[in-house]
Amino acid sequence: MPRVAHDKLASLVTRALKRAGASPVMARMTARALVAAEMEGLSGHGLSRTALYCQHLREGRADGTARPALVRKKAAACLIDARGGLAFPAAALAAKEAVKRAKRYGIAFAGVTNSHHFGAAAYHLEPLAAAGLVGLAFTNSPAAINAWGGSKAFFGTNPVAAIFPRRGAAPVVVDLSLTEVVRGKIMLYAKEGRAIPLGWAVDRDGNPTTDPKAALTGSLVAIGGVKGTALALMVEGLCAVLTGAALSFENDSYFEPGGRPRIGHAIMAIDPDAVAGADAYHGRLEAMISAMRSDPGVRLPGARRQQAAAAARADGIEVSGALDAELRQLARL
Amino acid sequence: MPRVAHDKLASLVTRALKRAGASPVMARMTARALVAAEMEGLSGHGLSRTALYCQHLREGRADGTARPALVRKKAAACLIDARGGLAFPAAALAAKEAVKRAKRYGIAFAGVTNSHHFGAAAYHLEPLAAAGLVGLAFTNSPAAINAWGGSKAFFGTNPVAAIFPRRGAAPVVVDLSLTEVVRGKIMLYAKEGRAIPLGWAVDRDGNPTTDPKAALTGSLVAIGGVKGTALALMVEGLCAVLTGAALSFENDSYFEPGGRPRIGHAIMAIDPDAVAGADAYHGRLEAMISAMRSDPGVRLPGARRQQAAAAARADGIEVSGALDAELRQLARL
Repeated sequence: MPRVAHDKLASLVTRALKRAGASPVMARMTARALVAAEMEGLSGHGLSRTALYCQHLREGRADGTARPALVRKKAAACLIDARGGLAFPAAALAAKEAVKRAKRYGIAFAGVTNSHHFGAAAYHLEPLAAAGLVGLAFTNSPAAINAWGGSKAFFGTNPVAAIFPRRGAAPVVVDLSLTEVVRGKIMLYAKEGRAIPLGWAVDRDGNPTTDPKAALTGSLVAIGGVKGTALALMVEGLCAVLTGAALSFENDSYFEPGGRPRIGHAIMAIDPDAVAGADAYHGRLEAMISAMRSDPGVRLPGARRQQAAAAARADGIEVSGALDAELRQLARL
Repeated sequence: MPRVAHDKLASLVTRALKRAGASPVMARMTARALVAAEMEGLSGHGLSRTALYCQHLREGRADGTARPALVRKKAAACLIDARGGLAFPAAALAAKEAVKRAKRYGIAFAGVTNSHHFGAAAYHLEPLAAAGLVGLAFTNSPAAINAWGGSKAFFGTNPVAAIFPRRGAAPVVVDLSLTEVVRGKIMLYAKEGRAIPLGWAVDRDGNPTTDPKAALTGSLVAIGGVKGTALALMVEGLCAVLTGAALSFENDSYFEPGGRPRIGHAIMAIDPDAVAGADAYHGRLEAMISAMRSDPGVRLPGARRQQAAAAARADGIEVSGALDAELRQLARL
């Protein structure tokens, strides 16, 4: 596959999003996030999303002219209204507010309401780490996981991310969704006609299944079953209940016709200097990392993504002919 | 089994802890927590812990005379030093500080360092819910889960809890550890000579095992494998790295001879009024609960514990003859 420089791809995606109705700033910020995900090897949150975002902009499921606004605030806490636009400008504003408020108050909470798919959760925490802050990020999403004992999808995949900045090294990054597997993996099994392991999914009546086709019309299983379901409820509480956003089950799947998503996000920033102090924090963090590395099989969370991004920055990003054609068509080049 | 009134049991446990060297206030607060866990049906964090806590007090692994202190603070963030005592007075001080600071600043973080086993995580969030605040609680613990790809236990079971207060009803409560199963369940399989399912544990070399005996000398598996391991790292970061406490792998198992634990806890409080507003919060929360209840198989997280506690309050707590004898012996009655 040919390799393309990341800034060239960002220009192409920006142009496509603008063509579909995004404001220049929304297009630029969104393109930057999609290219960053692609560089990290997270293709599910990368360039392949361009077509969907363009479609949503054209259908009015995302408002390309929306400008996010700080609508409520009280010292260390605040709420951003994404006003139905693509999520990236609103999430960036939330990160900026979280940094500012955590520096002043020691910790901050920035919620986002009326928002759209925000991609890889940890991306939004990079400004926090750059400011020396520990960060947590959460989002809800269209329903994918049944409530425990329930027969239909209720909670989103509800990702959780965390970032821990280091001195003179890339931060430690945690970023995961709460399902055992992504739907794409089950689609692969269906295509190959293979049974899926028990514990990945349930059928449309909520019963465990090994049939990938029954799984695709059913729901995904949360990590640890009832435990992951409870974590999904916690994320729903932080992202939708506290922010006034739509609950996961109230949103339509992004991949089917439907209304404007009104999901929510939550970003928290904590200043190590306000707890045990920055030196204590860095001492403990490096002690943890050294101990992990003393076991040769162990890899640090986030390290693989960072290596992929460095390689992509140096050598360009591999883009298939089909994806290249799609992006050029969307950009009308 | 005979039923005993909860206040009688609390007096008995208080007396036992004082006999072992706990100050009156530490004994009383610890007894209250152990009885509360027993009432909720969480016997692993209940009365059965009395003997272990007494042993730790006698051995100096917990300092019965310790008084927790607020050692650092900056607006919405603070650090409590448990000074090597049993955890409950320090966790209660952290909860109190979190409430006070979240009411003022919208969100608060209270870390605890130099601490001991804090029992059921959600217990410490009750004062937050009573004050109308959303709460999150985390703790690290002696190592039980391998780092991903590693061959020995590194992270604790690292529980996560959340509380969402309701108007005129008991709060929604999330409380879970990050392992697929508790060690006690594997012990039961070993006793019965049954194989454990793949995915519960690994042997001492880090290889998946179905042999319960190999599992008991190995490590527990995190929910969702690599995902739960990443969540355990996140909890380690919040509880030990930010607070300066000992990392999970630096602590000795509570059940084997060893040094004083120096684990850490983290409590966060968020004021719904500082985000979308209390009315919006309660509206969204009740919408979520109604939708969950419209599916007859669904139960609300925390509901079973609350029902058990109400029954125990009314009818007393079932105590086996062996446990009753143990408590009486510890209290020298």
